[in-house]
Amino acid sequence: MPQYEAGTFDVIVVGAGHAGAEAALASARMGAKTLVLTMNLDMIAFMPCNPSIGGPAKGIVVREIDALGGAMGRVIDKTHIQMRMLNTAKGPAVRALRAQADKVLYQQEMKRLMEEEPNLTLHQGIAEELVVEDGKIQGLITQVGGIYRAKSVVITTGTFLRGEIIIGDLRYSSGPNNQQPSIKLAENLEKLGFETVRFKTGTPPRVNSNSIDYSKTEIQPGDDVPRAFSYETTEYITDQLPCWLTYTNEQTHQVIDDNLHLSPMYSGMIKGTGPRYCPSIEDKVVRFNDKPRHQIFLEPEGRNTREVYVQGLSTSLPEHVQRKLLESIPGLEKAEMMRAGYAIEYDSIVPTQLWPTLESKRIENLYTAGQINGTSGYEEAAGQGLMAGINAAAKVLGKEEVILSRSDAYIGVLIDDLVTKGTNEPYRLLTSRAEYRLLLRHDNADIRLTELAYAIGMVKEERYVKFLAKKERIEEEIKRLRGIMIKPNETTQQVIRDAGGSELKDGIRGAYLLKRPEMTYDMISQLTASTVELEDEVKEQVEIHIKYEGYIEKSLQQVDKLKKMENKKIPENIDYHAISGIATEARGKLAEVRPLSIAQASRISGVNPADISILLVYIEQGKIAKISV
Amino acid sequence: MPQYEAGTFDVIVVGAGHAGAEAALASARMGAKTLVLTMNLDMIAFMPCNPSIGGPAKGIVVREIDALGGAMGRVIDKTHIQMRMLNTAKGPAVRALRAQADKVLYQQEMKRLMEEEPNLTLHQGIAEELVVEDGKIQGLITQVGGIYRAKSVVITTGTFLRGEIIIGDLRYSSGPNNQQPSIKLAENLEKLGFETVRFKTGTPPRVNSNSIDYSKTEIQPGDDVPRAFSYETTEYITDQLPCWLTYTNEQTHQVIDDNLHLSPMYSGMIKGTGPRYCPSIEDKVVRFNDKPRHQIFLEPEGRNTREVYVQGLSTSLPEHVQRKLLESIPGLEKAEMMRAGYAIEYDSIVPTQLWPTLESKRIENLYTAGQINGTSGYEEAAGQGLMAGINAAAKVLGKEEVILSRSDAYIGVLIDDLVTKGTNEPYRLLTSRAEYRLLLRHDNADIRLTELAYAIGMVKEERYVKFLAKKERIEEEIKRLRGIMIKPNETTQQVIRDAGGSELKDGIRGAYLLKRPEMTYDMISQLTASTVELEDEVKEQVEIHIKYEGYIEKSLQQVDKLKKMENKKIPENIDYHAISGIATEARGKLAEVRPLSIAQASRISGVNPADISILLVYIEQGKIAKISV
Ligand SMILES: Cc1cc2nc3c(=O)[nH]c(=O)nc-3n(C[C@H](O)[C@H](O)[C@H](O)COP(=O)(O)OP(=O)(O)OC[C@H]3O[C@@H](n4cnc5c(N)ncnc54)[C@H](O)[C@@H]3O)c2cc1C
Ligand SMILES: Cc1cc2nc3c(=O)[nH]c(=O)nc-3n(C[C@H](O)[C@H](O)[C@H](O)COP(=O)(O)OP(=O)(O)OC[C@H]3O[C@@H](n4cnc5c(N)ncnc54)[C@H](O)[C@@H]3O)c2cc1C
Repeated sequence: MPQYEAGTFDVIVVGAGHAGAEAALASARMGAKTLVLTMNLDMIAFMPCNPSIGGPAKGIVVREIDALGGAMGRVIDKTHIQMRMLNTAKGPAVRALRAQADKVLYQQEMKRLMEEEPNLTLHQGIAEELVVEDGKIQGLITQVGGIYRAKSVVITTGTFLRGEIIIGDLRYSSGPNNQQPSIKLAENLEKLGFETVRFKTGTPPRVNSNSIDYSKTEIQPGDDVPRAFSYETTEYITDQLPCWLTYTNEQTHQVIDDNLHLSPMYSGMIKGTGPRYCPSIEDKVVRFNDKPRHQIFLEPEGRNTREVYVQGLSTSLPEHVQRKLLESIPGLEKAEMMRAGYAIEYDSIVPTQLWPTLESKRIENLYTAGQINGTSGYEEAAGQGLMAGINAAAKVLGKEEVILSRSDAYIGVLIDDLVTKGTNEPYRLLTSRAEYRLLLRHDNADIRLTELAYAIGMVKEERYVKFLAKKERIEEEIKRLRGIMIKPNETTQQVIRDAGGSELKDGIRGAYLLKRPEMTYDMISQLTASTVELEDEVKEQVEIHIKYEGYIEKSLQQVDKLKKMENKKIPENIDYHAISGIATEARGKLAEVRPLSIAQASRISGVNPADISILLVYIEQGKIAKISV
Repeated sequence: MPQYEAGTFDVIVVGAGHAGAEAALASARMGAKTLVLTMNLDMIAFMPCNPSIGGPAKGIVVREIDALGGAMGRVIDKTHIQMRMLNTAKGPAVRALRAQADKVLYQQEMKRLMEEEPNLTLHQGIAEELVVEDGKIQGLITQVGGIYRAKSVVITTGTFLRGEIIIGDLRYSSGPNNQQPSIKLAENLEKLGFETVRFKTGTPPRVNSNSIDYSKTEIQPGDDVPRAFSYETTEYITDQLPCWLTYTNEQTHQVIDDNLHLSPMYSGMIKGTGPRYCPSIEDKVVRFNDKPRHQIFLEPEGRNTREVYVQGLSTSLPEHVQRKLLESIPGLEKAEMMRAGYAIEYDSIVPTQLWPTLESKRIENLYTAGQINGTSGYEEAAGQGLMAGINAAAKVLGKEEVILSRSDAYIGVLIDDLVTKGTNEPYRLLTSRAEYRLLLRHDNADIRLTELAYAIGMVKEERYVKFLAKKERIEEEIKRLRGIMIKPNETTQQVIRDAGGSELKDGIRGAYLLKRPEMTYDMISQLTASTVELEDEVKEQVEIHIKYEGYIEKSLQQVDKLKKMENKKIPENIDYHAISGIATEARGKLAEVRPLSIAQASRISGVNPADISILLVYIEQGKIAKISV
């Protein structure tokens, strides 16, 4: 194939799914001349599975992406059909926002943002080969022989690498949703020495809304309160569309039992490992076979389509079995199946081959992000994409690399898990993966991350100034409430009685009274006759801060300890085989992961505290210094 | 591959491009239980080339589709970004409406219409094999082994059959825009004995609007007058977007000259025949090498995207040459090429294998429509799709088949050309192909076709009643103007003088005065003190009818002659080899095309008047009757 020089960039991003879009936007925003190369410009930020963004842990990631100057939050705020705050009755640590997306509008809006971004060039093309010299990336070559040169490359090819759709007994080479698979690039990565594993994920059927009998289902409306993911959003969508809830039943489960032998999952046809936390319906029925029913949510795919996503019915059973499954479910008896569910198997890269910046250890300045790194989920992809984009640009621009710690953000947890522990299945972010849940809240993503985002150039002056002002108002109000005395007068006692609390014996500081579970910020504010009218999000911060002070303090102390361990850096060139006393398994793992700090080393599974002690002593005694000269 | 029974339908339509969408909607509307099976539901009615609908001849087809109850007109009326009536200064026969489409909105709206259609089921799937028994279609089998049974099948797979993208020296198997090609179905059609040819078509690059210097181009705004394709449209889009005009120049042509050896067109790499009337820029420069410049229109692809289609620059030159071409054009010097142009080669069916109903002669109840039949263009595809859908449903429902004659509609011309003459290149509809241009006008599509559409059930009562009322108002007004006398009084003379005409000597009938070129309906209406206020479209009909009466009469007389010849039917089972006297070439052609009437026979190229005379005598002498017993 004749080749030609197609241009030189600072950063090239391959793929424009959820990871690629964020990576490209971030890199451009950081000031790097960026190219995003993607197979089909009409499929930017396409959602091959559920038309929704957010939910537990994931929703917090979207807020973090936004706080860091990313796009996902802004885009979903503009293009959702419904939004709900989950777990409002529970503590602030588990609250999470979840939006149903208008699938097509989401794609359009993300594409538009990318088209408008000054340093960013979009080009439709298929990357087939990476150009590597002396272990360093130089660019890549496309299917039409275009050689694109760049200092950094970010690969975000999702489930396309040697993608194969599997449904019943059938398997055919394909990207998601009958798009082209990416075979040559997969072969090239293999040739370059990347270790890959075969993962799989699945999606449920879609049905035509006009063929659903909604009278047999329960309505699930959006929240009345307008909400947003992005700290920049000022306009809210008010005309929301409802979702609907129905359930599987004995008949459904019977259909599955009767046809399990046809399932590629059980026939041995599927070799890739699926996501334990996004099980297929056949998985659920088999694993929880005492459960009489499973929830099925009917989610519209957009405002201008009648397509409805059947959440909870992910399956790779043959098409005719899928039809029977639908028939068995109340409301779906006559549902017209517009698309069948299917599983897709694909190559993903073993993520322990990456540094915590998402740069590959094998090839300098080559980054990977998203599902290619073994994750599953749009938000997980976007979070990685953002960080890979930031780091790819930072490296090129001579700026410092950015690594979020586990106490900074869920994105930090996600990436640390991937590069430190690897993953045996498509990795999904869960709140349970975070040690510092009370710190990594939905409501304080900006407090956690705006400072950093501003420092690296991802958030502009105007937003930063606003943020500082907000932070100041929060701090001042906390100070005020800590100082102010509330007298046990009749008004006070009345407010307390109304809230169902027990009356005051003595005067009490405002902050102290607010700690009582039944008291809210608004009540205290009333009793302390505050003159400034604070925004809801400031009030929320004040309230959470004061109410959970003790827990937050405790977490912060733990974080301090962690930070100390994070600061104990392990030199890059350490030779674990030269350290006697470390167990063989641990030695192997350490050599593979090459942790950057003692903290990271201690999180590697198979590395025990005893190994860490030896490692610590070794480093502190300066053995390293000797070796490295 | 294990197979399963996936359902039984009256009609199955394969593909949901412009042909498939109309076919499916028409079939369902006719009352047939219809399935449309398409590779990717996210790509329904996708425009792989220019984001526009209409223009000379094509625009009239859209009006005809609408008059016949089709969808294209309604959809573009709702989703355009600009509309213009072309040739307003010229006669009514060549006037044509042209709209720039919002590409994504167009797709969405067509998909929604299909989802809403009661008798229609949409299903994402890939047809791989037709089920044929005793020469009759029975259904088809999909890539996942679903056997879909049907009485009729319509195939509308566009450029997907063994699609190969060609750009520079490179050729790779692909559907348009990097979608999957359709290989198994192509092999199956071949196995079933279909004769195919290899055609090719091409598309220009797309650029980012933000990188265009519009100051070097001329603005092309839409019309101020609101207009619509559909007779049903009542709401008009008023905020239009402009297009822009620039030109190629010597430098552009030099780039092409310098790189012609890299063009797959000239290197022999492309074997498929391209459309003469949609030439690539390299074609234009080579064929018209004395022309100093060619027009380049910059057309936005939609409201929510910055992608711009570079009309006039269709090319399959290598990507780097395309970049140089762009650089040479005023306004595009710094244009970012978002997609490169490319050519696509594909199998298409030799259309003389079809009856004028678009049913294949080889396999009963199997229809093909759209680009698969050797045409090019969305409107050509949609027109065929509509007729194939109508006929497939009609046959199943035991209704009469519908064949439009060359004097009924451009769609009639198109289909007759295809099945009678075949085509050596991707066929494009041009006004010059119609003998009765003055009858087949943009303005009278409803008058020509609503009666028929109502009779076959494509147009509902309400619309029909409205149509009849309109027709009556036209006829009455014509009658009135024919009857009424205009006196040569001062008012009259003043109006005539103002219009630049010469004064009346005597009184004159209204209709007669209107025939004068400078007089308009409104002037006459003023002079005859009409009391009823007629709609613009009624006035237009009255005016055209009266002004062009003589020409129209003449055309109608020719049509009468034609009709007589159309009525001379040729029995299906005629054996041309048994008729002595017919020239060998003509004999072969007649046996291949199997014309239904003497009129059709006389249009076959290679069949001479002498052959026709012999054929006529043969049939009239009742020879046929003898043979067929
Ligand atoms: C069938 C299916 C079911 C899923 N189910 C779930 C689920 O239940 N829950 C869940 O959380 N997540 C699910 N996912 C995962 C979710 O869709 C992905 O995690 C997410 O889209 C990944 O984003 P990404 O950016 O990494 O990759 P993608 O969104 O897949 O984007 C990849 C991009 O790379 C481009 N590309 C690929 N190869 C090339 C190349 N060689 N050159 C140029 N461009 C290229 C593609 O065109 C695309 O733009 C599912 C995915 C699929 C396909
Ligand atoms: C690159 C390119 C350039 C073009 N340039 C021009 C131009 O300059 N001027 C012009 O007038 N026209 C041009 N055209 C042609 C115009 O786009 C087509 O004529 C028109 O889209 C044809 O409509 P169709 O419905 O026949 O096919 P398409 O619109 O191509 O639709 C085909 C449909 O069939 C589906 N399909 C294919 N195979 C299968 C299968 N096995 N099973 C199920 N579904 C299947 C596809 O998914 C798709 O929905 C161009 C087309 C291309 C691709």
